[in-house]
Amino acid sequence: MSKSEAPRRKLIQKFADLGFDVYSQLKQKELPKLEIPSRSISNIKYDASLRHYVLGEKRVTRSTSNIRHLKPFTQTIWVAYFVQNLLKANRSSTLRDIYYSAEAYDINFKDQEESDGVITDLEALLRTPREDFKVFPEERSAVFGDLTVEYTIPGYEGNTLNLSSSPDGIMIGPALTTSNFIKCSADKVIAIESGGMFTRLVEERAQKKFNALLIHTAGQAPRSTRRLIRRLNKELSLPVLIFTDGDPWGCHIAMVIISGSVNAAHIPDLATPNAIWMGVWATDIEKYGLPTDIFSEQDKKRVLELLNDPRYQTKFWKRQLKEFKRIKRKAEQQAFSKFGLGYVVESYIPEKLELLKRMKLLR
Amino acid sequence: MSKSEAPRRKLIQKFADLGFDVYSQLKQKELPKLEIPSRSISNIKYDASLRHYVLGEKRVTRSTSNIRHLKPFTQTIWVAYFVQNLLKANRSSTLRDIYYSAEAYDINFKDQEESDGVITDLEALLRTPREDFKVFPEERSAVFGDLTVEYTIPGYEGNTLNLSSSPDGIMIGPALTTSNFIKCSADKVIAIESGGMFTRLVEERAQKKFNALLIHTAGQAPRSTRRLIRRLNKELSLPVLIFTDGDPWGCHIAMVIISGSVNAAHIPDLATPNAIWMGVWATDIEKYGLPTDIFSEQDKKRVLELLNDPRYQTKFWKRQLKEFKRIKRKAEQQAFSKFGLGYVVESYIPEKLELLKRMKLLR
Repeated sequence: MSKSEAPRRKLIQKFADLGFDVYSQLKQKELPKLEIPSRSISNIKYDASLRHYVLGEKRVTRSTSNIRHLKPFTQTIWVAYFVQNLLKANRSSTLRDIYYSAEAYDINFKDQEESDGVITDLEALLRTPREDFKVFPEERSAVFGDLTVEYTIPGYEGNTLNLSSSPDGIMIGPALTTSNFIKCSADKVIAIESGGMFTRLVEERAQKKFNALLIHTAGQAPRSTRRLIRRLNKELSLPVLIFTDGDPWGCHIAMVIISGSVNAAHIPDLATPNAIWMGVWATDIEKYGLPTDIFSEQDKKRVLELLNDPRYQTKFWKRQLKEFKRIKRKAEQQAFSKFGLGYVVESYIPEKLELLKRMKLLR
Repeated sequence: MSKSEAPRRKLIQKFADLGFDVYSQLKQKELPKLEIPSRSISNIKYDASLRHYVLGEKRVTRSTSNIRHLKPFTQTIWVAYFVQNLLKANRSSTLRDIYYSAEAYDINFKDQEESDGVITDLEALLRTPREDFKVFPEERSAVFGDLTVEYTIPGYEGNTLNLSSSPDGIMIGPALTTSNFIKCSADKVIAIESGGMFTRLVEERAQKKFNALLIHTAGQAPRSTRRLIRRLNKELSLPVLIFTDGDPWGCHIAMVIISGSVNAAHIPDLATPNAIWMGVWATDIEKYGLPTDIFSEQDKKRVLELLNDPRYQTKFWKRQLKEFKRIKRKAEQQAFSKFGLGYVVESYIPEKLELLKRMKLLR
């Protein structure tokens, strides 16, 4: 039995339990119902000790005794049935596949948003991310560095790959997400917002220079990428540094990796609370004399929103947000090109790593 | 000297020649000028024998004797200088890097659109795609299958990779684009629009079943992907099949791979005139009873536009477009999920390959 077998079998059992529960209600001549953790804003709380969003105790009842609940109840049971079959067949699928597959069973979804919502309910109900159901979105980002993985997906089980084999980076898709980590010489992770900067770092051999795994988040990190980052942090104890553009949107790319998103409050294992935003800090903009763009109205509004967000109430974040508010300017990662293409690897990152060590944020 | 050395040296010489030309005009006490092939719509023609767009003979003069030309002239010379240095250092860069790098030289671009335009002028002037300048965008798509490549980018020269090593697909970035093809057992290429269908085909081992290289175009194929497809067709003589959604946008994803885009009329080596659109055809929609969406106003308008496009004037394309016009409905690739996740590999693609053989479109 491969390493991935046990959790798969456990999850198939969870779905069976869900079915048994409905079945025994029917046997007792009750109209069956499901109790699903509420995902409404009022039930989403920021847990300061866990440092990420969690769901509260509220539940919503989906009862077949209520005519308005009949359709979503049936949809939920069908999706559970479909996903259990996926798991039994050890096959992966996408959110879009599920939307279309429903048609053959006369389960009608108004649109994909509706079927996505039911899948999210099922995640909350079973406290299990849909990636474990083998249901993936189309989002893609990439990783590069000295980590050897062993694939577990059917047809490719036992195949291994060193993630420094392709200098364009290895795509973070269903296969990598479900792989086992076999061997790693890197001692940190650097997650990078833009593809241009990722390519720059690979070309300047930053993975060797900083002994790092480089991850391209492609903007806001997709869930599969956040899971991979968390696994690298938990399973391999690698510190995680996040390198984004110097603007409120960059801050929030870092924050979602650190603390999770409101949308995924019901899935706790996406956050990496120990991850560190390494730049481009608001305070770096004047320090390095970076080329900037002036803040748009949206940028200004976003800074004020973040200043009120419970996740930004530490001294460090407040200082950065206030600096943005003062200078009303932003700088992209690639703005360092002004000082030559090699500058970011020769000067900026080494200086920042030194600083983080002095601040005792990094070993 | 590695295989990639000769074209690089030749291109460095092309830039030197450009510089000499300007220099000799100055030496003869003339105000220097450049003659750049015009990229205006009136100079873009569809060449029916070549089956792609080409530039006509019109040229625009950029002369330093004209005060309005002084800035774009200087920008063009600076970009040529910057790119020649990139080539000398054998380093890659992005469109965005160039925009920022200019600041250090007091070359001001209003925005990235302006610097991108100058790079396109330089492509037209030297009849060389910017990928050969080592200037890349951030677009990414992926490839999977039994092709071994040898990388040529600095720091990774001579490294080889088999493109079936990562079941998520190998990213098509600067490194893969500039690699040499070493060994290939596949006898065709299947280019796929959506990531979901690409993952499905990998999981169903379509690369083995159809002896194919699978390419994920991620919607409209990026230039680097179109170049790779062309190279696979020319260098390895692989027939290319394009599998898109069944709608006018899918037709046009195929057509841009086949015939190139108006925007890249000045770069001939992006098109693959022998590539074949394998589906989802308009005529497949009723034949297979696919789940459909009703046409939007944009869809309707797009079909009429394509019916007037010189590239769509063959019997086959006209029939498909007229069928779309008649049924006013569209179907996505993933709509085949209705018949089970394996259906597309077990039935649809084999049937379509048979049909293409009978139509003598495929060997």
